[in-house]
Amino acid sequence: MLVSHLPNVFYLTGFTGDAAMLLVGSGRPVLLTDPRFTSQAATECRASGAHIVITRKPLSQEAGEHLAALPRSATALFEEDSLSVAQLRVARSQARCGCHWKPVLGLIEALREVKDAEEILRMRAAARAVSRVVEYAIRVARAGVAELDIAAEIEYRMKKLGAEGPSFETIVASGARAALPHGRASSKRLKEKDLVVLDLGVILRGYCSDLTRTIHVGRASREVRAWYQAVLEAQTAARAAVRDGVEAAQVDEAARSVLRGRALERYFVHSTGHGLGIEVHERPSLRKDQKAALKAGSVVTIEPGIYLPGRGGIRIEDDVLVLDGGSETLTTASRELIEV
Amino acid sequence: MLVSHLPNVFYLTGFTGDAAMLLVGSGRPVLLTDPRFTSQAATECRASGAHIVITRKPLSQEAGEHLAALPRSATALFEEDSLSVAQLRVARSQARCGCHWKPVLGLIEALREVKDAEEILRMRAAARAVSRVVEYAIRVARAGVAELDIAAEIEYRMKKLGAEGPSFETIVASGARAALPHGRASSKRLKEKDLVVLDLGVILRGYCSDLTRTIHVGRASREVRAWYQAVLEAQTAARAAVRDGVEAAQVDEAARSVLRGRALERYFVHSTGHGLGIEVHERPSLRKDQKAALKAGSVVTIEPGIYLPGRGGIRIEDDVLVLDGGSETLTTASRELIEV
Repeated sequence: MLVSHLPNVFYLTGFTGDAAMLLVGSGRPVLLTDPRFTSQAATECRASGAHIVITRKPLSQEAGEHLAALPRSATALFEEDSLSVAQLRVARSQARCGCHWKPVLGLIEALREVKDAEEILRMRAAARAVSRVVEYAIRVARAGVAELDIAAEIEYRMKKLGAEGPSFETIVASGARAALPHGRASSKRLKEKDLVVLDLGVILRGYCSDLTRTIHVGRASREVRAWYQAVLEAQTAARAAVRDGVEAAQVDEAARSVLRGRALERYFVHSTGHGLGIEVHERPSLRKDQKAALKAGSVVTIEPGIYLPGRGGIRIEDDVLVLDGGSETLTTASRELIEV
Repeated sequence: MLVSHLPNVFYLTGFTGDAAMLLVGSGRPVLLTDPRFTSQAATECRASGAHIVITRKPLSQEAGEHLAALPRSATALFEEDSLSVAQLRVARSQARCGCHWKPVLGLIEALREVKDAEEILRMRAAARAVSRVVEYAIRVARAGVAELDIAAEIEYRMKKLGAEGPSFETIVASGARAALPHGRASSKRLKEKDLVVLDLGVILRGYCSDLTRTIHVGRASREVRAWYQAVLEAQTAARAAVRDGVEAAQVDEAARSVLRGRALERYFVHSTGHGLGIEVHERPSLRKDQKAALKAGSVVTIEPGIYLPGRGGIRIEDDVLVLDGGSETLTTASRELIEV
């Protein structure tokens, strides 16, 4: 099998460089990379036992040359969603083995869904790091400060805590902009009565976290408190529903039904969460049409939110480890409504 | 033509979202994206005149459905290095037009090599921004400060200046680590007599800059000064060689011959530079085997360096706009050896 999706290469070998392909077969796995990564590959791949090949050729060409030794009866699997048409053409023409090239989809991603003990340690560390970072961000948030300045503080603190970087572009969305589920930080300044959605994640030792908190500038009105309480109850209900064997759709429904009871369901315009690991969006998806059962050892986000056009939005998101008969919430930042 | 490489989509439409495909034919171009980007696409694509289609389907499926109207005699071009095998399969099966699918490579990238007036304004702004950022970094660099803390300061200042982010992972490599051409910032602290290579870039309004400066902790020895002077002369010679029509290899040779004259050529282990624009590595490549002529309106990096195993490294890099009969250096930070 030719593994070309870099998160899958990292999963199988520990290699974090941004150019690699991996050949997995009956013998030792073979990692192909270029001379920029000679010493890094040797260090990072040691535990996996992968044999390292440093090449100046295009990796698809090098992969094809390695596969040229295969018998005609062999089947070469490749990841069809991460190999480009050009890469397949080059690999095939070099291999000249007449073997059968067969596309696969999601094979290694399915293995990655259930984390092992070492992976869980890393995800817990990434979740704790992002929980600390959001506290720094809340400390600098006040009327007059620009969204971009808060985002800069967030990413600065991530780096200071030793993170490789943010796991996605940090979202700071205030006032009416908080009604955009994916509002990039802008030069808009926070002002009195703004709701402010902070959505951030770090990559730490290769694993992602993803956390959202919503704060309020100044004293929140009774109406805003009621909205916040509704989202918090929806989020708590969904977290309580997480356990090995439960259908993803049931977790989504746990959040949705709380909001339905407050006549807020129509403002909840996305799904309840997604898997998390080496990538920030992985299997499973916690959507209402997903019948698949959650598995112990998966980590999922739980992030219901409501978006009131022109008024703002509220989202509360934690990272949750699925366990037999229950769950562990990995992110630790306070979930109470904070007024700044 | 089905355009799937996002920097090419941005070049043709101005769209900066991270999910899009573009169909370009005889009529109005058609941008395909998903509901997260509804308002963003409308705003960003206005000037290009592209028609926007918002879809919840996979973009390759939507693209295929649009192409279903093509006659059997038509040819559908696709970018073979950015379309995955899976995407081509889906698009083809949806198109069902029996038309001819033809791979192309580097078609739009070739157009992007020569920048227009608006692009040059943006590249000049990105180059000035990175020049300011490096000055902040040099101000915090001193013995005892960790490489990662300097990298955190750099990325914080980028964000504060309004940049979308770094154009690549910021390099801060000190002491023996400066001998690694791609040394990621680590927890190593700067100490007396370290050379420190700072290599950073910003993306500002969609365009990249890329700058390297090398500083010294404490008073530099006569030997270090001589090395620095050699690299600076090599870099100055290469910048002086840049003009419309010159072979890329001649610019590389201008730098290389200076280092050869000081018996330092064997420590110069990479090429002299690369094109720069929407992506941080573009055409042309300034390598000794590149006979292609530079074109007025291109922007290239000029970045010779020497790497002395165990001792450290020195690299000086600027961004240079190719002009008729000469060039303009866009980055403005001082090139003198700075001792901190």
